Amino acid sequence: MKRTVKLDMAHTLINHGPCCLISTFDGKKANIMTIAWSTPVNTEPPLVAVVIGEQAYSLKTILKTKEFAVNVPTKKLLKETEYCGSVSGKKVDKFKIAGFTQIKAQKIKAPLIRECVAHLECRLYKKYKFADAYLLVARVVAAQVDAGLFDDHLRVDKLEAKTLHHLGGKYFTVPAGVIML
Amino acid sequence: MKRTVKLDMAHTLINHGPCCLISTFDGKKANIMTIAWSTPVNTEPPLVAVVIGEQAYSLKTILKTKEFAVNVPTKKLLKETEYCGSVSGKKVDKFKIAGFTQIKAQKIKAPLIRECVAHLECRLYKKYKFADAYLLVARVVAAQVDAGLFDDHLRVDKLEAKTLHHLGGKYFTVPAGVIML
Repeated sequence: MKRTVKLDMAHTLINHGPCCLISTFDGKKANIMTIAWSTPVNTEPPLVAVVIGEQAYSLKTILKTKEFAVNVPTKKLLKETEYCGSVSGKKVDKFKIAGFTQIKAQKIKAPLIRECVAHLECRLYKKYKFADAYLLVARVVAAQVDAGLFDDHLRVDKLEAKTLHHLGGKYFTVPAGVIML
Repeated sequence: MKRTVKLDMAHTLINHGPCCLISTFDGKKANIMTIAWSTPVNTEPPLVAVVIGEQAYSLKTILKTKEFAVNVPTKKLLKETEYCGSVSGKKVDKFKIAGFTQIKAQKIKAPLIRECVAHLECRLYKKYKFADAYLLVARVVAAQVDAGLFDDHLRVDKLEAKTLHHLGGKYFTVPAGVIML
């Protein structure tokens, strides 16, 4: 039996892709924000889309510098991921408070977050605004992953690669094992 | 230690949101296609984005009818999900071959797929083309879920709500239990 879902909750039926930590650098300070909504868009050229609220402090930096990194946190970073999504970077140093380590990116000025399992360096390509949200389409210019956790797919069967998937509110899930067709 | 990932594989670092089955109706026949890439975009109004290859037979129908449904399959539908993503609906009746049951949608003409756990009825709002892919932003006009599998979040801890997440190639994963912050 089906039941109707309120329209403002409809997104929670398909929103459980991997949480990502967006890192930016405004010329003075590196910052981090958590996003739950992203998707690949194209393979060649490699394009991804991320959704960022218009009130996000990081948005200004992204629109100014035209770049950001997408870092993929795992289960052990649940608290840090929640923290980076609940506090503005305007007044605090989230790298410091979350205990994250900056590593130099290959192609962009924003640092990567060492503790994350995977990293996409992105250059902003297009931006679209819908109500309170910006849908940013970016070109991936470099990508890295923790050695041993990627064999043509992310090894989410391994404890170190249990990505975090937000179900809504205070609920998250992580991948179980890998299923082969 | 980090290792570099080839750019045409970079998307597989963040692509494991829930697979969806897009159902459409062209006035004569209902069709289904599988997508791996989608994201919510906004809550109020409720908007979602789906990525569809320009060669997809369903794309013509969506651009013509300006509507489609997003149905969310679960683990027991792995083979059907793979099938609907590997065959064109131009010559075959995928509902019939996959053994899916059509149910009437509330607001659109495209049928829903009863065997799926959740359903978003969508009206096309904007379309953007990037290389071979269309990014379609749509407004959710109705949503339903299997009774008992949603309490302000999708109950992916239950066997009947184990959504399918494509890791790339022949690899998939499903959610483990629900984690509360």
